[in-house]
Amino acid sequence: MKKLAIAVIPGDGIGKEVVPEALRVLDAVAEIHGGLEFDYSHYPWSCEYYIEHGEMMPKDGLEQISQSDAIFLGAVGDPSLVPDHVSLAGLLLKIRREFQQVINVRPAKMLEGMVSPLSRPENFDIMIVRENSEGEYSSIGGRVHSGEDEVVVQNAVFTKKGVSRVMQYGFEIAQQRGGSLTSATKSNGIAHSMPFWDEVFNELSANYPDVKTNSEHIDALSAFFVTKPQTLDVVVASNLFGDILSDIGAAIMGSIGIAPAGNINLNGKFPSMFEPVHGSAPDIYGKGIANPIGQIWTAKMMLDHLGEPEMGALVLLAIEETLQQGIKTGDIGGNSNTKEVTDAVIAAL
Amino acid sequence: MKKLAIAVIPGDGIGKEVVPEALRVLDAVAEIHGGLEFDYSHYPWSCEYYIEHGEMMPKDGLEQISQSDAIFLGAVGDPSLVPDHVSLAGLLLKIRREFQQVINVRPAKMLEGMVSPLSRPENFDIMIVRENSEGEYSSIGGRVHSGEDEVVVQNAVFTKKGVSRVMQYGFEIAQQRGGSLTSATKSNGIAHSMPFWDEVFNELSANYPDVKTNSEHIDALSAFFVTKPQTLDVVVASNLFGDILSDIGAAIMGSIGIAPAGNINLNGKFPSMFEPVHGSAPDIYGKGIANPIGQIWTAKMMLDHLGEPEMGALVLLAIEETLQQGIKTGDIGGNSNTKEVTDAVIAAL
Ligand SMILES: CC(C)[C@H](C(=O)O)[C@@H](O)C(=O)O
Ligand SMILES: CC(C)[C@H](C(=O)O)[C@@H](O)C(=O)O
Repeated sequence: MKKLAIAVIPGDGIGKEVVPEALRVLDAVAEIHGGLEFDYSHYPWSCEYYIEHGEMMPKDGLEQISQSDAIFLGAVGDPSLVPDHVSLAGLLLKIRREFQQVINVRPAKMLEGMVSPLSRPENFDIMIVRENSEGEYSSIGGRVHSGEDEVVVQNAVFTKKGVSRVMQYGFEIAQQRGGSLTSATKSNGIAHSMPFWDEVFNELSANYPDVKTNSEHIDALSAFFVTKPQTLDVVVASNLFGDILSDIGAAIMGSIGIAPAGNINLNGKFPSMFEPVHGSAPDIYGKGIANPIGQIWTAKMMLDHLGEPEMGALVLLAIEETLQQGIKTGDIGGNSNTKEVTDAVIAAL
Repeated sequence: MKKLAIAVIPGDGIGKEVVPEALRVLDAVAEIHGGLEFDYSHYPWSCEYYIEHGEMMPKDGLEQISQSDAIFLGAVGDPSLVPDHVSLAGLLLKIRREFQQVINVRPAKMLEGMVSPLSRPENFDIMIVRENSEGEYSSIGGRVHSGEDEVVVQNAVFTKKGVSRVMQYGFEIAQQRGGSLTSATKSNGIAHSMPFWDEVFNELSANYPDVKTNSEHIDALSAFFVTKPQTLDVVVASNLFGDILSDIGAAIMGSIGIAPAGNINLNGKFPSMFEPVHGSAPDIYGKGIANPIGQIWTAKMMLDHLGEPEMGALVLLAIEETLQQGIKTGDIGGNSNTKEVTDAVIAAL
């Protein structure tokens, strides 16, 4: 019996609704598979937890989950309870950083049965590989003077190590897919970090002669996601640029409610974490109408990562079948609720 | 007779093709207007100029154009001759900076006769107000160590003065339009500059009780340009975020080939500069097929700025009539050439 220990953190808002649904799908997959068992440990870390305990997770929280095979997270943040920067820094960004989840992978793919806001979405299938540990998301910086004279400096830090490993990951995925790799840059406007980014990209390109490469400025590349997404394959981007591109990717897929993500630890010292791209959407929480597809697709990515790509493929097929049957939540034009969509996915497995 | 001194810098590539066309439109406008005359001074500053003189513009170049009423620029950059960062820093970014063109204004508007890549573009009419002098585009930063250990630091600098003035400009435009102002932030991920950005925005909001405001993270906001652009009115953004949003804006309008921009000097000490959003497109240069609409719409923005909003409105109507007649260049689905499109605009004035 293959046992997989999963640390489950539903978090806030609709995270608490869609995570249990996705676990039902995982259990159904385990049953079909046979010889596979998920051992869930549930952690109530969230903004509500903060209100009670004054912190987003206990002091030894990371230790508690460090032995898991993977972390399955819903969504973090409820600004009515805790300011976003506090909740995110104390839970989501903390795990990403402390567990050295240095890469964030996010597919943007036109699924069967989805309706894109693009009039001719064609058949795009993009994999965004985002740097997840450094770059523009840095806590270095500060202020000087006050009032009318106040000046704020924000540092972005790019290391050869950080940039190389995310690019190498991108090259490897491009190689596996027999595809191309596009680097998101802005070296025509940002004077230090982005020319360095380009240098490393050009240097590494030589090691992957079979991968077609190109560099695009982030402004133009963002536009290409709208005008010609079918020309893109794997895209490697800095922390900030990857964040922006993956939301545009979610938009052209038809809804951020379906977009999945994986935060990948590369050195095997800590678990990787899987979380949908969408947030906690406190405005629709509790109504049972949240779209569970993002969390379910996220479960598929976790299955791939845990060495079960066949099960992963099965889940994605079941998602597409459900969408094609028109069993959808309201955000993507249907009138089914969270539970009905999940039931349909399970039935389609 | 009202005389307006215009410094004309066609620059590189298609800049050299579309600028003369837009000047034809301006002359036609002057004729209709009566009592209005444009006095053009032409400057050949470009990558070709660099090859000959070792610099993008002469040492006293800024002085030469400093007395103009406005600068009318085509496009800068031809990487086959000069690396982009050299050509841009030596001409485009230099003028923006030295002439304290601290604001960049870029409309993203669904024109009659254009076909958007969005299936339901509705009637969006967004004005992007971009900070144009500081922020992420800073020359401060550098490198330490080399090889595997190399670390690059890039500083972004946000000043109370810089942030306040761009926001005030945004509030005023929103007030004039009777509309709302959306602030592009990323304070949930970027720890110093963006919380400061939010603070200033909230502080200033109190002075404009008639303007509805909201803040959106740049990732979500980029997606909204695709999923619900009709809900946006005026958007105020940092240098980098404004750059990205304006390219997405151009994409949803149907082509970057039509998007205009103004670089605005606020203190009256130097001229403002008008330039389309598109680049020099060396690949299509010389074929007579470049879309002149971006440059012509840019001329309209210059007319507005020079106190001729009625003439400006006339030009935009003529552009829309031309598009509706199907007289378009190839990039927007037509088969007319640059000259034919311009002729049609002039005929429609
Ligand atoms: C060429 C580049 C430096 C420039 C910018 O980013 O400002 C361009 O993209 C623009 O938007 O005008
Ligand atoms: C919540 C926020 C800090 C986060 C990020 O920017 O990384 C989110 O937008 C994401 O993409 O996961």
